[in-house]
Amino acid sequence: MRIDDLINNTGEWLKGTGPQSHIVMSSRIRLARNVSKVPFPSRANKKDLTAVYDSVKSAIEKSGYLKDSVVLRINDLDNLDKQFLIERHLMSHDHAASGEGRAIAFSKEEILSIMINEEDHLRVQAMQSGFNLFETWKIMDTIDNELSKNINFAYDDQWGYLTACPTNTGTGIRGSVMLHLPALVMTKQINKVLEAIAKLSFASRGFYGEGTQAIGNFFQISNQVSLGHSEEDILQNINGLVRQVIEQEEQARQTLLVQNKAVLEDKICRSYGVLRNAHIISSQETVDLLSMVRLGIDSGVIKDVDTQAINELFIMIQPAHLQKIEGKKLSATERDAKRASLIREKLEK
Amino acid sequence: MRIDDLINNTGEWLKGTGPQSHIVMSSRIRLARNVSKVPFPSRANKKDLTAVYDSVKSAIEKSGYLKDSVVLRINDLDNLDKQFLIERHLMSHDHAASGEGRAIAFSKEEILSIMINEEDHLRVQAMQSGFNLFETWKIMDTIDNELSKNINFAYDDQWGYLTACPTNTGTGIRGSVMLHLPALVMTKQINKVLEAIAKLSFASRGFYGEGTQAIGNFFQISNQVSLGHSEEDILQNINGLVRQVIEQEEQARQTLLVQNKAVLEDKICRSYGVLRNAHIISSQETVDLLSMVRLGIDSGVIKDVDTQAINELFIMIQPAHLQKIEGKKLSATERDAKRASLIREKLEK
Repeated sequence: MRIDDLINNTGEWLKGTGPQSHIVMSSRIRLARNVSKVPFPSRANKKDLTAVYDSVKSAIEKSGYLKDSVVLRINDLDNLDKQFLIERHLMSHDHAASGEGRAIAFSKEEILSIMINEEDHLRVQAMQSGFNLFETWKIMDTIDNELSKNINFAYDDQWGYLTACPTNTGTGIRGSVMLHLPALVMTKQINKVLEAIAKLSFASRGFYGEGTQAIGNFFQISNQVSLGHSEEDILQNINGLVRQVIEQEEQARQTLLVQNKAVLEDKICRSYGVLRNAHIISSQETVDLLSMVRLGIDSGVIKDVDTQAINELFIMIQPAHLQKIEGKKLSATERDAKRASLIREKLEK
Repeated sequence: MRIDDLINNTGEWLKGTGPQSHIVMSSRIRLARNVSKVPFPSRANKKDLTAVYDSVKSAIEKSGYLKDSVVLRINDLDNLDKQFLIERHLMSHDHAASGEGRAIAFSKEEILSIMINEEDHLRVQAMQSGFNLFETWKIMDTIDNELSKNINFAYDDQWGYLTACPTNTGTGIRGSVMLHLPALVMTKQINKVLEAIAKLSFASRGFYGEGTQAIGNFFQISNQVSLGHSEEDILQNINGLVRQVIEQEEQARQTLLVQNKAVLEDKICRSYGVLRNAHIISSQETVDLLSMVRLGIDSGVIKDVDTQAINELFIMIQPAHLQKIEGKKLSATERDAKRASLIREKLEK
């Protein structure tokens, strides 16, 4: 498998098949791990980084789950590849900007990925479509066990897993759920919901990761604390919180449908009409319209397109994806035209 | 034929079949005539008005062209009927607001119509699709001759046909051409064109008649003077002027297509997409979008709909038409929904 093999496929997490996928796009678990007795990447020298890379690569090859993964050195990637992997949610901006000794690995359907020598020696990520944290955790736990057979992880009996940043110490776990909350946004309840989430010490982020705005009405909810609780407790807490947010979104959708069905239907159908007909379209407008169409599918207004196609478009309309698909560098103007034609093509099917 | 028979048909002038119909919607000739020795309608008493009505009705029945026309007394029409006939360009607002002794007559396909006892005893109108003033004049001239065999028209050897307002005296003729000039509007040349028209003593009006704004980029050009020239000269003058405006619009369309093809295509296709998908739409937005689609048909961007369907929609999306089609009174909100569904239905065909 090469990077270009990803172009015409998207990850399992976009399939729209998991539980509650009318509201939850995906569930994700990230684990921070470090190799015992080797300085954290920010302090490590090239020899250390290379040693970590070699041992992780070797552990991947010995893993049942991971053995068919692609392992790519950052230094072997061009800028478009890096941007492409960031857009794909497989790699962070910081990691893309790094170099010698740093690498990225990912499995088929992008269910699992590992950033090697990012902030920690290993940042392992597992993703599943829909509201599926415990299934995701099962996968992650298996991988963690497999890897730990071949890598001696830095672990302290009092503190748990040691990490570069103390906020990740303990379990090293972060669970995130990506929610689509258009009705809470439209009914102007979203700020209250986000405030409540913050008070409960959970974090909310935008679709494109840490520090990004909530676009397309997507919000990622994740835990902030990974110390002092078991993995299961941490995930149970997020799970309970997400369940409440789902209920609130469902109520808001009902309210919209009861109070303002015609207006909502109009907004959804117009969004669909513009997406299927535009010849020039920005990513911001696209994401706003896709969000309405996604809501339209759940509310039964739109019947001839499935959630997967819409989920995938959120990823494919990004600049590096458009250029990979076109097979050449595109200016911003050219991307707006390519984006429109890609959308038309995908929605005509 | 009854008024309700008109609902599912539209006039010949909307067929989009005449010459230059990519730019010219229709050609229209109006003739003002009065019955000799009877006071003009504003001065006439009920007996006079009734006598005029009787003699015009009798003349219509004896006419070869007009004998199958519908003749309707204003007092027999309800408000919806009146509004419907105004929307249809068959009757003026003033005429609809009148009463006893006043009437309206129109022939099959609405090629000919007569307002009886409006400002003049007879206001005869002939309409044809496309740029077709001389064909329209032929029809009008025949009717004028037929009617004058049975009605003694007020005529003065020095002044010609006498009319209630002196601006119509002489030939009593007004020729109008309805032009669709989206490219002159988009390239911001329209004001210069309209100023030139005014300097040449021609009038320009909007789609919905005298005193109305130019909506949907439609402009009606007509003569102001009807005295001192023959009918043929008057029509030749309008004809020459319209020919120039058509050329300017064609050049502007070329300019847009050369300089800004992608942007134009996007605008046209989005308009089409919104029309085919909206569930609530105002008449103003509809007319703006229909205008773009009409341009899209001429420029080859839109291929699966014909000019006639678009022309007809300009008429059918008006309030009285929507209510006639629905068969009941509709609130403004209900009309916006009915308008959207009518458009979707018509464009799906």
